[in-house]
Amino acid sequence: MNVTLSTGPTGIGTRSARAHLRPGDQPVRPIPGLYWHPVAEPEPTVYEELDRRLKRWAVDDIALFPPEWEEQFDSFGTGRYMCLTYPDAASLEHLEAAGQLMVAENAVDDCYCEDHGGSPHGLGARLLMAHSALERPHSIAPYEQQWQDKLESEAPCRAYRSSMESFDRISADQVRDREIHDLARLHLGYLAEASWSIDERVPPLSEYLMVRQYNSFRPCLSIVDAVAGYAFPADLHDHSKVQQVIALAALATTLVNDLYSYTKELRSPRPHVNLPTVIGHHDQLPPEEAYDKAITVHNDVMHRFEAESAACLAELPGALTARYLKGIADWVDGDHWWHATNTGRYTLPGWLA
Amino acid sequence: MNVTLSTGPTGIGTRSARAHLRPGDQPVRPIPGLYWHPVAEPEPTVYEELDRRLKRWAVDDIALFPPEWEEQFDSFGTGRYMCLTYPDAASLEHLEAAGQLMVAENAVDDCYCEDHGGSPHGLGARLLMAHSALERPHSIAPYEQQWQDKLESEAPCRAYRSSMESFDRISADQVRDREIHDLARLHLGYLAEASWSIDERVPPLSEYLMVRQYNSFRPCLSIVDAVAGYAFPADLHDHSKVQQVIALAALATTLVNDLYSYTKELRSPRPHVNLPTVIGHHDQLPPEEAYDKAITVHNDVMHRFEAESAACLAELPGALTARYLKGIADWVDGDHWWHATNTGRYTLPGWLA
Repeated sequence: MNVTLSTGPTGIGTRSARAHLRPGDQPVRPIPGLYWHPVAEPEPTVYEELDRRLKRWAVDDIALFPPEWEEQFDSFGTGRYMCLTYPDAASLEHLEAAGQLMVAENAVDDCYCEDHGGSPHGLGARLLMAHSALERPHSIAPYEQQWQDKLESEAPCRAYRSSMESFDRISADQVRDREIHDLARLHLGYLAEASWSIDERVPPLSEYLMVRQYNSFRPCLSIVDAVAGYAFPADLHDHSKVQQVIALAALATTLVNDLYSYTKELRSPRPHVNLPTVIGHHDQLPPEEAYDKAITVHNDVMHRFEAESAACLAELPGALTARYLKGIADWVDGDHWWHATNTGRYTLPGWLA
Repeated sequence: MNVTLSTGPTGIGTRSARAHLRPGDQPVRPIPGLYWHPVAEPEPTVYEELDRRLKRWAVDDIALFPPEWEEQFDSFGTGRYMCLTYPDAASLEHLEAAGQLMVAENAVDDCYCEDHGGSPHGLGARLLMAHSALERPHSIAPYEQQWQDKLESEAPCRAYRSSMESFDRISADQVRDREIHDLARLHLGYLAEASWSIDERVPPLSEYLMVRQYNSFRPCLSIVDAVAGYAFPADLHDHSKVQQVIALAALATTLVNDLYSYTKELRSPRPHVNLPTVIGHHDQLPPEEAYDKAITVHNDVMHRFEAESAACLAELPGALTARYLKGIADWVDGDHWWHATNTGRYTLPGWLA
């Protein structure tokens, strides 16, 4: 993913929609020509309470960030994001667990991979350290405790450990295992992109699309059952047709992020590889045309996601499958709307005026 | 893992037990002081047939290696390794699927990480390419097919793709998913070790033991049910007590490999981090004492594995749990015996005379 806490070089504390606009950039709104579905706007009282709880957890329980990052944390809109993407949530506690996981994922990305002290160099060791906070590693005294102490000394690792404890309270063991697997996929995706960055390599589009199924929103998507208070059984979840639908949804949502964060990434200190830049590089297209083609690629992925989702339900008919696939589709739609309305974070390129 | 096809700088084609002995080195046999259990020697007619099948697969089906690597392939003893570690196997076809997976894992390690063209540099992109061959990534025409063509052009990726197809025929969907997860763990472990190598960093023992639960034999261990022709259900497998037992078994077997391959790794072109070298570095011990302490660490992990296995069965009593835990213990014992008797591959340090 690339939904980081950072606001780019406009600097910490300058957050506001206008502060992000460069001459020519447009306030965020749905990208013209993008294929998406409308969603209901959630209740502010609900997501404001959720944000209060998440903030209390981040500050009091795990000391996630120094005071100067507070405004960035607040401006991300995690509570509204959760309400938009999990409309079927069983309770505020369920949304809280999902929100903690996303905050933790962003912290790992920011602090280990990206602009808040992260780097593509040495990332393999840092990411496995973080990953080990998701599933307690076992060895022998005194080394097992020494490793736990090391994890507790790192804010992103505390966030992973604590959010997985919360998730454990709302999910079955097999859904916890699924989530850890999806986070392993995410970390493998980060590491592939880190190697591109070190080698200053722009991958061909076929490779880029593969990697964006790993560095993707999959860990958020695949837990729609747990957040809704039920468990989609492993034998259904692991069926190749369901796996295909999840993979396509993960890709579609991640490409939405590429499109909405395009101008933000142009302003970041390190060059970012994203769908428009990959297309522009290999097809030798000017930015407007590359961005246009990226919209088409996204739309084609969305159409395929919807077609395979229908085919999956036909092959595995049943109320549980229908509910899980509906949850995935809801997540996709809510994710788009969060991006299209997060005016404090994103702007559209000027030529879309 | 570090069970590579390579024979070290003695060179391709010089394989024989004697060719590996340096002055002072001892032919392999059980390491004095190591805690292990004896196993029954398998039937040569069975493992020789298995080796014939694996060779035919490697050569005819997936063109895994050039002719000059043939002797190394033969000398690894994959068939006997499989028979020793899966004594409960349901059929030769089941052993074949497990053997293909191990051959494929070794090919990925050799060709992408280690001495047959591998390197710690750029490994993130190569390993995710390989990983994507385990679970077909989905996008849209023509990029999806372009990526499949790329995977088919790479021998280690063909090996992963084909061995997972064989495994799919003998396993439930949820065991396939488990195996892909364990291979993601393996790849994250490789990437952590690659970053140590690039940074020339020797991790503290607590970190080393954590990482060796990822870069470990876990993908071989965890499929003992599938190879025996049954599926240990996800809700049992994903229980934290079972996860603990698997993690400790993965660590114990991997430390056995560290001890038996110690002299082999001393001769490899790049310095290898292993349990005795980590201990020697941080405790400032001469090699003999560091090796001795490494034996103690291994034995302590083994004792903890056995204690937690008994505790696990007490907490989750039942025939399926008992059978699965017995399968894990059998794998641990067979793995030790393969290492202790693979005279073509390993030697012991001279001071163990």
